[in-house]
Amino acid sequence: MKVIEGGITAPKGFMAAGVYAGIKKEKKDMALIYSETSCMAAGTFTRNVVKAAPVEWDMDIVYNKSEANAIICNSGIANACTGTIGLDYCKDSAKYLAEKLNINEDTVLVASTGVIGQQLPMDKIKKGIDLLIPELNDSRRAGSLAAEAIMTTDTEAKEIAVTFDLDGVEVTIGGMCKGSGMIHPDMCTMLGFLTTDAAITKEMLQEALSENIKDTYNMVSVDGDTSTNDTVLLMANGLAGNSLIHQKNESYKAFLAALNIVNTWLCKKIAGDGEGATALFEVKILGAETKAAAVSLAKSVVTSSLTKAAIFGHDANWGRILCAMGYAGTAFDPEKVDLYFESAAGKLKIIEDGVATGYSEAEATRILSEPEVTAIADVKMGNMEATAWGCDLTYDYVKINADYRS
Amino acid sequence: MKVIEGGITAPKGFMAAGVYAGIKKEKKDMALIYSETSCMAAGTFTRNVVKAAPVEWDMDIVYNKSEANAIICNSGIANACTGTIGLDYCKDSAKYLAEKLNINEDTVLVASTGVIGQQLPMDKIKKGIDLLIPELNDSRRAGSLAAEAIMTTDTEAKEIAVTFDLDGVEVTIGGMCKGSGMIHPDMCTMLGFLTTDAAITKEMLQEALSENIKDTYNMVSVDGDTSTNDTVLLMANGLAGNSLIHQKNESYKAFLAALNIVNTWLCKKIAGDGEGATALFEVKILGAETKAAAVSLAKSVVTSSLTKAAIFGHDANWGRILCAMGYAGTAFDPEKVDLYFESAAGKLKIIEDGVATGYSEAEATRILSEPEVTAIADVKMGNMEATAWGCDLTYDYVKINADYRS
Repeated sequence: MKVIEGGITAPKGFMAAGVYAGIKKEKKDMALIYSETSCMAAGTFTRNVVKAAPVEWDMDIVYNKSEANAIICNSGIANACTGTIGLDYCKDSAKYLAEKLNINEDTVLVASTGVIGQQLPMDKIKKGIDLLIPELNDSRRAGSLAAEAIMTTDTEAKEIAVTFDLDGVEVTIGGMCKGSGMIHPDMCTMLGFLTTDAAITKEMLQEALSENIKDTYNMVSVDGDTSTNDTVLLMANGLAGNSLIHQKNESYKAFLAALNIVNTWLCKKIAGDGEGATALFEVKILGAETKAAAVSLAKSVVTSSLTKAAIFGHDANWGRILCAMGYAGTAFDPEKVDLYFESAAGKLKIIEDGVATGYSEAEATRILSEPEVTAIADVKMGNMEATAWGCDLTYDYVKINADYRS
Repeated sequence: MKVIEGGITAPKGFMAAGVYAGIKKEKKDMALIYSETSCMAAGTFTRNVVKAAPVEWDMDIVYNKSEANAIICNSGIANACTGTIGLDYCKDSAKYLAEKLNINEDTVLVASTGVIGQQLPMDKIKKGIDLLIPELNDSRRAGSLAAEAIMTTDTEAKEIAVTFDLDGVEVTIGGMCKGSGMIHPDMCTMLGFLTTDAAITKEMLQEALSENIKDTYNMVSVDGDTSTNDTVLLMANGLAGNSLIHQKNESYKAFLAALNIVNTWLCKKIAGDGEGATALFEVKILGAETKAAAVSLAKSVVTSSLTKAAIFGHDANWGRILCAMGYAGTAFDPEKVDLYFESAAGKLKIIEDGVATGYSEAEATRILSEPEVTAIADVKMGNMEATAWGCDLTYDYVKINADYRS
């Protein structure tokens, strides 16, 4: 398993492009991913009752259709709360692109992020498609341009690729994502697009994504708000030439492990680049009785506003962490908990069996002043673990989200 | 039913005092409530797994003992995460006070808020008790001093009293509370102390408090963090001379209605005085199928960081409200929702059947610029309602909670 340069164009047969179509004020706002070879497609979608039109469009393709060839994404208008017109516009976008690429419109996945409640400017979307198609190519640069074009208030593009060996052939998974951001302050949305040249059945592809999402994307929280548009799509075109993965064998496990590396890396990038964030905040729960308990404890800490504000202040405020664990809705004995803070600057035991150790506040502050900090709580009840990722709560978070839409 | 001047000393037979005992740096830090006549006591307590020692002490008295005479409270040290020593200190405090007042230590309720993980400075607590006892009296001023002494970062004392008629006799309920605040930024805690001269059985008193808490204290959220110390105590000494309320009759209903006025008023004060808040944010859900659905929708909106930041920005960001309703875990049809904003400046329909009305942004901003703003969402599925209270998310919230403990 090896992390390589590049992103979604790293796997064989995937092309991409990213352009400015005039939907946003100045930045690139449309991205296209395309595989001439038809792909198996898997997806996971927001569980918000309010689902954006492209989420409904994609769910239909992923759950009811057999193949996919392209993903078209705009990062200016979310196309959420737009009724049947919004859904019609998804179809129109897919149809327009499909005609140009000579593929079926049912193989075009659609994604979007941005302002909600507004209808897509279809003239600009079509113009964007016209601009994207001549730019399509499989270079690393093309992947990067696409990664850039899906950004909203993200401060950096997020892309990664890994290669690994299956039956003696090299298989690649590439990915890109955007995190919590917006154009006008309307909606934070997480979008993840993954490509692979692995040969794998649609069923196993969905199984791998659904399984891995629980430990990765679902463990990220920037502000506890679940968007109407959250989408992760994974396309596999089979061009690597490995024996088809059709059951949960060793090859499936290797694929899942590679997928986990890609998704974990992308999730940490999303969390660390949360709106206004100055630090990635990682929370590890050890020694839980069940996986569900570990997950709920980790998420409760990583979403606690008081804890997030303390991380911003580089303050070893262990009381807030114990408190957040306490209201997670999971039973544990506070008087058995060990808690550590860890970062590139070192690791420090803060409480042992629920009681503060004689730790140095200065040392704790030094550890918490790094751009990536981890809190590790061992509840000593079993051997299940979970890790969640978030970020600190800062003045800038409030600023970004309080400004008037303009 | 009439709201009158005063607080916990308004009902017959209740005395109070508030003093500075040197636990905090300068402000009053100890309060005492006392009724010579033994009281029925009811209580509701934090559901956090991590419970502070005084919460455990009080639960024992409320659930297992028959009567109570006093509440002793300090607002400097939370006495949470302090193990068996912390519990011993509760007993020591109760015992010391009980001896001075010639009552049984099992009738002394104990409460605290402040820094967690530190042991109580028992010398100062005892000195505080010595100072409190000579100050005890039933004046309005004494009640106000007690209300002041339980404050942490609250910007104002919170007290109220109401009178109402039962069987031709005047009955009074008084209350005071503190909201989200801290000494060193360690823990926000909600403490509520209620007194009444109503004659009511312990069972009916607890029933009334437990029933009303669901619509009042449990609907308040400043930052989604549930403290280890949250406590509401209600003492009834029977001195009003009404016929004993021993079942859910008309008198019980009148008592519950008066209790609801007191608690609703206190809760709105807590929410509006949340850390760093510039506005009380009220969320009303109408037309829900079940009470539980209405509650979960209201709470999801009132705790949404994105929505809270928009309220700070006086921004009619209805997308965030629909989004927060969407992830509440309750089914509804987004395309049926009507949404209004309301304040002293007027009422405006923002969306109808899920689609934006042609409302004026300037008018919406004017309405949202008041110190108390309400969002009303009608999901048109039934006739159940719920109201939740919170506040906006501001720079000052981050500032208060990010500063180093000093």
